[in-house]
This record gives sequence, structure tokens and C-alpha cells, in this order.
Amino acid sequence: MDDAAGLAIAFEEAQASYDEGGIPCVKKWKTAVDGCAEPSLTRPRFLLCTQIGAALVDSSGKLLGRGHNMRVQLGSAIHHGETSALFNSGRLPAKAYKGSTMYTTLSPCDMCTGACLLYGIARVVIGENRNFIGGEAYLKQRGVEVVVLDDDKCRTLMDKFIAEKPDVWNEDIGVEERVYSKE
Amino acid sequence: MDDAAGLAIAFEEAQASYDEGGIPCVKKWKTAVDGCAEPSLTRPRFLLCTQIGAALVDSSGKLLGRGHNMRVQLGSAIHHGETSALFNSGRLPAKAYKGSTMYTTLSPCDMCTGACLLYGIARVVIGENRNFIGGEAYLKQRGVEVVVLDDDKCRTLMDKFIAEKPDVWNEDIGVEERVYSKE
Ligand SMILES: [Ca+2]
Ligand SMILES: [Ca+2]
Ligand SMILES: [Zn+2]
Ligand SMILES: [Zn+2]
Repeated sequence: MDDAAGLAIAFEEAQASYDEGGIPCVKKWKTAVDGCAEPSLTRPRFLLCTQIGAALVDSSGKLLGRGHNMRVQLGSAIHHGETSALFNSGRLPAKAYKGSTMYTTLSPCDMCTGACLLYGIARVVIGENRNFIGGEAYLKQRGVEVVVLDDDKCRTLMDKFIAEKPDVWNEDIGVEERVYSKE
Repeated sequence: MDDAAGLAIAFEEAQASYDEGGIPCVKKWKTAVDGCAEPSLTRPRFLLCTQIGAALVDSSGKLLGRGHNMRVQLGSAIHHGETSALFNSGRLPAKAYKGSTMYTTLSPCDMCTGACLLYGIARVVIGENRNFIGGEAYLKQRGVEVVVLDDDKCRTLMDKFIAEKPDVWNEDIGVEERVYSKE
């Protein structure tokens, strides 16, 4: 899988969070926890969930997992795009991550940076970093290859979300006002 | 709440993972996702779940959330002690974390280090760091106060887990063989 194809999956995940309003990812989530019933279809749709997506691809080009931010859908502070992709990849031995690439629509925050480091992910390919710059410098310092594609579609989707829901975005990156970088 | 009281909660969480075999935390988890049925009581008990616990306490001494590693219970690569405590704290605005302390039974891995940085947690109080040293130096570099209590109970519980389930432990810290530090 080349970088454009990997980022395309991450972008689909980001857009799913916006377009589908959260229901599909909650269904997927609940199915992942076995023995758990289907969610009620009367559950209200979530509007304007944080639209950041990610895809984790191994060294052979196989998709290990994909996911998107689920702050609104799950009321979760830890389900960002990248961590959701790791969650959806399931339990894997360390060797499964060797040479892997994390595709993400937006520069990874400190938590997602650390998650990539924990599992020894080799490359992080970033859709855009104009709306937010996370731990790129630290990733490089720790030996991870960082590629920024400066993708228009990723930036446009993120611009729209930040403009429409600045409060959810600020909460997601742990700040009281909009910032472009915490470093 | 003083540091001994905070660490005691983190330790209870760690021990719960070991003693209770995972069922109680899965129930708690499913209850958190509303509309989801109770898990089947015929579900097999999990044995020897990773016993690392954490508690997040705010600047006024109020417990925001507590949790433990759920790798085995949820098949999750992202639910460590500290991230589970953050998850169980729910969605909070940035100001709720101001001046907060994360208590953890073991030195935080890179992911949990990053999660503390993302939310601007002020202090990280660590039960022990003899079995593993995570991102302590980076936390200090980024302005977080780090306190290591070198607690015997935390170390003894962790020693026991690592001796009994080295494979689960290695998977949890993303390594193929036991290491004391990735830095
Ligand atoms: Ca993210
Ligand atoms: Ca942990
Ligand atoms: Zn993140
Ligand atoms: Zn951790």
C-alpha cells in the first residue's frame, strides 16, 4: 500500500465520523466487546463528532486496523484517530508492529505520539499539520520517520470541523482556547 | 487527598485486575456505553490480567476517575492503567485537569506519558519504577512533577504478574523480550 492509499483510508475514517454521526462506530465498538447486544436504534445520532481518522498498516502493506476519534460517540478522552486504529487492530505481539506505518489525517497529539512510540511504529504519515502540530519533533528524535503530505482534503475537513465545533476540538486537544501547537 | 491515599486507589485497581479476573471491569465498561446489555454471566473469567492501576485526582483532591489495564479483558492495546483512568473520568474540559495528579502503580509507558502531557496533568506519582521505567525524564522535561514512591506492595504485585505472565507483559509494553526501559 502506498502513502496515498493509506491516507485515503484514514480520510474515509475521518469523514465517517462527520457524515454518519457516530452510530456506525458505536455499533462496531459494541460488536468488538463480545456478548454485548446491538445498540438501540432509537439512540440519538451524534452530530459533528471530531473528524480525525487513522489507519495502521504493517510492513507487508496489510491493514491492521482503522479508526477515528470517538470523543463524542463514546464520551471518551482516549479514543483519538490513532489510538482507535490501535484499538481496532486488537492485541498484537510486538513483532506485528515492526516496520508498520500509522496514517493519520492530522498531526498526532502527545498521547497518539506516545502510542506510536510504545508499539515501535516505524513511520507516521500525516495528512496535514496546519491546523495542529503535535509530537512530530519528538517522533523524529526517537527515530520514527515522519512524512507530512499537506493534503487539501484533510485540511478542508478539519477546517470545517474546527469552525463548527471549536469547543469539542479544544476539549479534544486539552486546551481552553484554540492553539496550533502545545510544544 | 495525599499521595499515599492516591496511590492506594491505584493499587486497589491493580489488584482488582488480578483478583477479580476481569469480569467486574468489563461490566463497568459496558455500563459506561449506554444502551448496552449486561454481559453474559457465562463469559469465561480472565486469568492474570495485567495488574497496573491508576487514579486521576484533581487539584481539589476529588477523584476524577480510576482504572486499570484492560488488555486481556477488552483485547485492547490502548487501555493501560492511566488511559483507563482517563477514560473513566469521561469527557472533561481542559480546566478540569489543571493541577491534577495521576497516580499509577508503575512508571508510565510512552503512551500514558503522552496522555498525561495531552491533558496538562501537573503531577505524576509513581508506585514503583524497578520493573519498568517509562517516560519519566520526558515528563520532567515538559514541566510535569514526577514523584516515585518506590512502594513495596506495587513492586511485589508487579513482580508476581511478570513472573507468571511474561508474554502478556511483553505485549503490553510492545517488546519481544523483557526490558526494563525503552528509552
Ligand atoms: Ca487524533
Ligand atoms: Ca499502565
Ligand atoms: Zn491524539
Ligand atoms: Zn501505559
